[in-house]
Amino acid sequence: MIIGGAEDRSGKRVILRRFVELAGGVHARLVVVAAASHHPADAGEAYRRLFSDLGVRKVTVMAIADRDGAAEVSRAEAVERASGIFFTGGDQLRLTSLLGGTRLHAALRDAHLRGAVVAGTSAGAAAMSDTMIVEGDSEDAPKKCTVKMAPGMGFLRGAVIDQHFAQRGRIGRLLSAIAQNPAILGIGIDEDTAVEVGPARPLLVVGSRTVTVIDGRSITHTNTSQSAPEEALAITQVTLHVLPSGYGYDLTTRQVTLPPAAGST
Amino acid sequence: MIIGGAEDRSGKRVILRRFVELAGGVHARLVVVAAASHHPADAGEAYRRLFSDLGVRKVTVMAIADRDGAAEVSRAEAVERASGIFFTGGDQLRLTSLLGGTRLHAALRDAHLRGAVVAGTSAGAAAMSDTMIVEGDSEDAPKKCTVKMAPGMGFLRGAVIDQHFAQRGRIGRLLSAIAQNPAILGIGIDEDTAVEVGPARPLLVVGSRTVTVIDGRSITHTNTSQSAPEEALAITQVTLHVLPSGYGYDLTTRQVTLPPAAGST
Repeated sequence: MIIGGAEDRSGKRVILRRFVELAGGVHARLVVVAAASHHPADAGEAYRRLFSDLGVRKVTVMAIADRDGAAEVSRAEAVERASGIFFTGGDQLRLTSLLGGTRLHAALRDAHLRGAVVAGTSAGAAAMSDTMIVEGDSEDAPKKCTVKMAPGMGFLRGAVIDQHFAQRGRIGRLLSAIAQNPAILGIGIDEDTAVEVGPARPLLVVGSRTVTVIDGRSITHTNTSQSAPEEALAITQVTLHVLPSGYGYDLTTRQVTLPPAAGST
Repeated sequence: MIIGGAEDRSGKRVILRRFVELAGGVHARLVVVAAASHHPADAGEAYRRLFSDLGVRKVTVMAIADRDGAAEVSRAEAVERASGIFFTGGDQLRLTSLLGGTRLHAALRDAHLRGAVVAGTSAGAAAMSDTMIVEGDSEDAPKKCTVKMAPGMGFLRGAVIDQHFAQRGRIGRLLSAIAQNPAILGIGIDEDTAVEVGPARPLLVVGSRTVTVIDGRSITHTNTSQSAPEEALAITQVTLHVLPSGYGYDLTTRQVTLPPAAGST
């Protein structure tokens, strides 16, 4: 579950409830990885309380402040037993630079492969893809210098995630990322919104706002390689979808799927 | 010339120079219509100084504060002699509600038909289309209630204009407008950027940032009519182009045109 940040934590808590449900309901064994945050213990405890309020007894908080923390054997072992893993928000570069290549990282990847639900919110979401957006200008036209990217955690292949999407005017930077390699899908997730991704089924949008999917395969012309970093990019014939809760998107066929009740146009 | 607002007024002044050039250079006879502004005299005088600095001697400022001002015969007569007309920024609803249906409005339309250059910036740009965006939420997912529209001045047919586009995160509201009638093209213009529109040729982008064109004809599914006003809209298969200076767009064929030096991909 890739969450766009600012998920509802006090009302209906649709997204958090869904994560808990996917991870086994009240019998879930959750691990909260607070590595992106500069105050990992606080961030971790906040989520422990939230999951506890939703009925989950077994919540292990990993407040990671340095790579030594990510190397501890006991932490990797706790992940081996987890049915759900939750990455908090903060700074995605902090998350990847602390975790990348550690024993904990390997354990997290194995957990994902054996079927544990892996979720991330805000920076935690941004870090879930192959290539992640580290930072970038919002509210300006797309330029190469607009967005900085780096390797992500690799839980989602073939796509770049952006979060707090509509709320922070981030389409320019997602377009900039996609222009640099249109094979990669752009997925922009609004606040209090998430995508559920599972094997052999389309991704599904949940939450109160929308997910914007940018498919660059249709791009006919681009000046990306010739343009200077601060020059405005030309990007033509991009295919864009805005999808609210209940809508889906098949990552393989790149087709939108409609909710059951939607009927025709 | 439809200008996205905040055009450069002290540096190279590319957009303002281009307007003056199109209107006849130093021999242009310009009319500045300061009707959108709540301080029309100040706004008008500011542009008189700008055009005077660019060598134009004949600048008539029309500081319109009410409909009586727009009914004056002398003003309509000045427009009959104009080679260029410039609408200042402010509030587009103020502009249309003061001018719409007056003698001055008729004279402005006639001037446009006989070949005078008509330009508008910011709110002045928004008012130039058939249907204009009055106001709308920025930085949120598109919803029907996101954008309020009303009849514009009609200088540009078949498109809806938005301005200060990337800088104010306005793509959600432009998508909302287009979802309501995908026959209409969406044209979002960044600050210090403009489109030149002429008969029988593609529109041309000038300025330092970009123009975003949203073509909804490819939309395959929409929930616009069934959704409640505050519900997030689903809009699929929109075609989007981001075009910097030198790029063009043929409004009839809906094809992008490349600048001479762009070469292949």
